[in-house]
Amino acid sequence: MIKIALAQINAVVGDIKGNTGKIVEYCLKASSKGADIAVFPEMSLTGYPPEDLLFRDDFIASSKNALRLIAKAVNVPYVVVGLPVKRSVYLYNAAALISRDGISFHFKNALPNYGVFDEKRYFSAGNEFLSFHIKGKCLVLSICEDIWDKEAISAIKDIRPDILMNLSASPFFAGRIRQRVSHIRSVAKKVGADVVYVNLVGGQDELIFDGGSMVVSGKGLLHISPQFKESISFVSLPGRKRPKPVDFMPLAEEVYEALKLSLRDYVIKNGFSSVVLGLSGGIDSALTAAIAADSLGRKNVMALIMPSRFSSDETQLDAESLAKRLGIRYYRIPISRIYDTFIQSLAPIFRDMPFNVAEENIQARIRGTLLMAVSNKFASLLITTGNKSEMSVGYCTLYGDMAGGFALLKDVPKTLVYRLSRFYNRKFPSRAIPESILKRAPSAELREGQKDEDSLVPYSELDALIEAYVERHNPKKDVVSLFSSQSMAEKMIRLIDRNEYKRRQSPPGPKITPMAFGKDWRMPITKQVRLIH
Amino acid sequence: MIKIALAQINAVVGDIKGNTGKIVEYCLKASSKGADIAVFPEMSLTGYPPEDLLFRDDFIASSKNALRLIAKAVNVPYVVVGLPVKRSVYLYNAAALISRDGISFHFKNALPNYGVFDEKRYFSAGNEFLSFHIKGKCLVLSICEDIWDKEAISAIKDIRPDILMNLSASPFFAGRIRQRVSHIRSVAKKVGADVVYVNLVGGQDELIFDGGSMVVSGKGLLHISPQFKESISFVSLPGRKRPKPVDFMPLAEEVYEALKLSLRDYVIKNGFSSVVLGLSGGIDSALTAAIAADSLGRKNVMALIMPSRFSSDETQLDAESLAKRLGIRYYRIPISRIYDTFIQSLAPIFRDMPFNVAEENIQARIRGTLLMAVSNKFASLLITTGNKSEMSVGYCTLYGDMAGGFALLKDVPKTLVYRLSRFYNRKFPSRAIPESILKRAPSAELREGQKDEDSLVPYSELDALIEAYVERHNPKKDVVSLFSSQSMAEKMIRLIDRNEYKRRQSPPGPKITPMAFGKDWRMPITKQVRLIH
Repeated sequence: MIKIALAQINAVVGDIKGNTGKIVEYCLKASSKGADIAVFPEMSLTGYPPEDLLFRDDFIASSKNALRLIAKAVNVPYVVVGLPVKRSVYLYNAAALISRDGISFHFKNALPNYGVFDEKRYFSAGNEFLSFHIKGKCLVLSICEDIWDKEAISAIKDIRPDILMNLSASPFFAGRIRQRVSHIRSVAKKVGADVVYVNLVGGQDELIFDGGSMVVSGKGLLHISPQFKESISFVSLPGRKRPKPVDFMPLAEEVYEALKLSLRDYVIKNGFSSVVLGLSGGIDSALTAAIAADSLGRKNVMALIMPSRFSSDETQLDAESLAKRLGIRYYRIPISRIYDTFIQSLAPIFRDMPFNVAEENIQARIRGTLLMAVSNKFASLLITTGNKSEMSVGYCTLYGDMAGGFALLKDVPKTLVYRLSRFYNRKFPSRAIPESILKRAPSAELREGQKDEDSLVPYSELDALIEAYVERHNPKKDVVSLFSSQSMAEKMIRLIDRNEYKRRQSPPGPKITPMAFGKDWRMPITKQVRLIH
Repeated sequence: MIKIALAQINAVVGDIKGNTGKIVEYCLKASSKGADIAVFPEMSLTGYPPEDLLFRDDFIASSKNALRLIAKAVNVPYVVVGLPVKRSVYLYNAAALISRDGISFHFKNALPNYGVFDEKRYFSAGNEFLSFHIKGKCLVLSICEDIWDKEAISAIKDIRPDILMNLSASPFFAGRIRQRVSHIRSVAKKVGADVVYVNLVGGQDELIFDGGSMVVSGKGLLHISPQFKESISFVSLPGRKRPKPVDFMPLAEEVYEALKLSLRDYVIKNGFSSVVLGLSGGIDSALTAAIAADSLGRKNVMALIMPSRFSSDETQLDAESLAKRLGIRYYRIPISRIYDTFIQSLAPIFRDMPFNVAEENIQARIRGTLLMAVSNKFASLLITTGNKSEMSVGYCTLYGDMAGGFALLKDVPKTLVYRLSRFYNRKFPSRAIPESILKRAPSAELREGQKDEDSLVPYSELDALIEAYVERHNPKKDVVSLFSSQSMAEKMIRLIDRNEYKRRQSPPGPKITPMAFGKDWRMPITKQVRLIH
């Protein structure tokens, strides 16, 4: 029996010193439990993705120094860590095998260069696999994409390993773990080996790594580590255990936990300890505040309630009652006086032009400025509260409600905002989001009697349209044909196309769908889409 | 003799209809002059780079339809255009050769996936070159990177062409054209052919394509088309002409023309006709206004002068006198009253905490809000005036002076801002930037007696540091050793590292150096760079 430690760590990008310390610490845990081998995730030494830090020679040299240091410090018989390795002018995404015989490497064969990945920007591809023996069993190392690529899988199969190790840094989206289990099981069958899959955990800018490391045989799942937290698990192979029935989190819980982790890591890893946000009395800011309080502790969340003349009494009361239930500090700052001075100052230019989007946006930008002032004064990170549906069609104000360091719901469609809120209310009834917030028709409250759905289509339709047009890149005419009002569908698509400039200046926010408005989505701002049919 | 038309067009990304019309129009010009062959730039049908539009099936299908339409419409014997072509599931960056015999293709062999390029995200690589004969001469087609890649050049050489055609979309940076001439000449020598190089022209988001199409033999330059504008040129080969001495624009002129083109194209291609900007009396906004007036016409530029209590009389007078000289409309809006209402509103939260960056930024954000209000009201694009040196170290206010749709000087270091201003003053003495603006020590004027160089190092040093650390990715310790004050150099590097979050939310701006803060620069926001030496 080989005792394997799956060390699912939360590495910080660039922090070679800190990550090395953590790896040594986890190796101590592994050795104290008598593990034969400890396996860490892809690029565990540097964090993932290190992006253009990989172009710095001192960064690459430091990874090498760190590896030597680990090799000296640890006393687990075999340790596998991920890091970048340079050979002459070529850089590789590598897995280092540290043993009494020294250090040997596997270089990643399959380099993803799609979606959020740019690995061909940095790395050359390896073209073989490293195999070694422990207690008579043949083990092979692979990295992430290597087990998602046909050619690489077939090369692995030719080695006939007993155990296939995979170091991963696989970004989360809702439901992703189910795909992983089923795919890895098919790999285990194809290769005829048990697969030990060790995934990174933690938030990194727009990406969430959800852990959920696992051991899978052709028959099913033998072990799964927790999602969304650091852990070390021990599994002995060959296993006599029967495959477990898989017990996945429901979608709302999974997304909720993902958002919580991503917020905490963005705040902490960037050196902040507290956040500030605006509470409008609407559902988006309510859910954001609730998650922030749960993620960072209620004492680390401050809210501003900033009514204008268009804010109803109900929304203001709801905002206050939510702040009270969450137990977070809040201040009320009416914005009418500031607004009036803006309007007076602009009068010589605006003369008697009618109230329009210019005045609407002034209100949102006053709020953005107040929030940023508090953020600057208290070194508290401003959290942006807008959702994906708004961001898609540009139903939000640049430098206004879009201001902030992290946009927690950036990839959460409005319909999912409601689902998450209901999940939250079931989980925390004592600090639930008031039912009136859940029931009120969404409004930006920037002019009299404004309702989101007067400018847009109902959110259930909008979210379906976004999924078809954005997530699946379906052609415009196929998307339009799905909707009852073709002209409204066309208008929404026009808005999606035209609001690239807003998205380009939006804060980062965590990816929780297969296609987020981040590195997955690289659309030109300047474009005139006029086709010839 | 083969008469070749080099059709250097300004294509609009996504506008297959419009680009097709332009190609047909240029073919008419070519045919009226009796050209044997008309050559268009890389991806001339779709514009470059089309980015994720390439994932849309209707977009690819439309390119095919457009090609068929062109084939029917034109009567030049040979026409070469660039477009994406799909073969089963593979997409290629293609050059289509249209002749009486039908349409044949070259698929780009060398796919750049570095710097600003992501071609491996979209395209599969071709592995051969298309050759054909006109009047007994052998011609070969190639696309951009094909003639910058050793293997591809050697494959071309094996065909022994008389004329090598290259369709390019080569992004500008200062001095790039000199590199091109010298490299293409070396290719001509190696291959033993004349090279016909047709480059795209026009601004596209952060990229500028500068044209400067050319015909080069092993002996030197036989022809060069103008930079920074659309043109069609005719060259007959084999040439009896002797190579021309090359007469390049001086650096300041080249950058000036590049900025002018990029601004005009960003404004016009995005459907605007006018711009608005803030004039502070400083050099950055002065140069920006001058270029805007020259590029778009003075009637299409509006300026706001927005003094606070920290604005000196001199800067305000300079701002006014510049606006008058340029003949642009301007308004003066003091911001003190708005500022006071902000401070009063924040008093319950700020209490008696001392004036700091929070209050400084409120002033900048009031200005940003005023400018955006005017932008919204008059559908005028807000042009951001900050320079690259500020952007590097984050000496600028998010949602304040960073607000806007296009940041004209985003990639222009402060020292170059001065050079460009002096170039401009020599070129347009009657509407020169006042000498006092050029001479005054730069200040953000956000607190009493503030001077940029009190917080930073002198700009000449800062710009050298940025070049070493950002542009060349030199290791921190090598960079620091170049400076007299190591602690200040370290502080600047820390600022560069820490201000990624600001850059991520900045407007796009034109790349004019080898390394701009755009697609060339992909640094994580969340990072702790702690190395092991």
